[in-house]
Amino acid sequence: MGTVRRFVGTEAARRWEGVAVEPYAPNDPRAGTRQVLIGPTDGAGNFALRYFVLAPGTASSLDVHAHDHGVFVLHGRGRVRLGDVEHALGAGDVVYVAPHETHVFAASDTEALGFLCVVPARR
Amino acid sequence: MGTVRRFVGTEAARRWEGVAVEPYAPNDPRAGTRQVLIGPTDGAGNFALRYFVLAPGTASSLDVHAHDHGVFVLHGRGRVRLGDVEHALGAGDVVYVAPHETHVFAASDTEALGFLCVVPARR
Repeated sequence: MGTVRRFVGTEAARRWEGVAVEPYAPNDPRAGTRQVLIGPTDGAGNFALRYFVLAPGTASSLDVHAHDHGVFVLHGRGRVRLGDVEHALGAGDVVYVAPHETHVFAASDTEALGFLCVVPARR
Repeated sequence: MGTVRRFVGTEAARRWEGVAVEPYAPNDPRAGTRQVLIGPTDGAGNFALRYFVLAPGTASSLDVHAHDHGVFVLHGRGRVRLGDVEHALGAGDVVYVAPHETHVFAASDTEALGFLCVVPARR
């Protein structure tokens, strides 16, 4: 059975029915938030869809791993480093992070960065 | 290598650098459009991310297949039928279509429905 997860938030605080707002980094509650929009509880066996907000002036951890990411920027400004190259990011921009590619996402100093992130279910 | 696909459109006509605007239904150019934001040309082996616009008063084909879908509504109003249940849709709403679930998406009569759609790469 599929799921409809109704948007019940505002542009400033995006929330969905039945979706918990978790800290992006459990050891740093200021870093931003993480919400799983589609995931294992839906029985989704192929992919997951998450929504992240990085607070102004913060960045994701510098990651490199075997699974890939698909990112769609919903709001704000920031940047992504893919390997050795840094790219500015704004609303609507799309990023594909290839397997084993070093990557870090960062919000601008003044504006949060909000984005959807697709990952394979097995990772 | 990853990819950054820069958004170069407007809210009324969403476009991305290097992404072709294809008809949603090749035999009915009025039905809407389809743009592949992440796909095989990126080397994405796990999933694809597409952006669809259904024109006002039109619907997707009634589909049932083994692969699942993850949908995020970006703009407009419409509805989705999952199995026998119809749900209204607006911006921000999220839909998970389970494998083998009958589904059809439709735009409202007055407003196009624009959404992101995640699918597994192997389907």
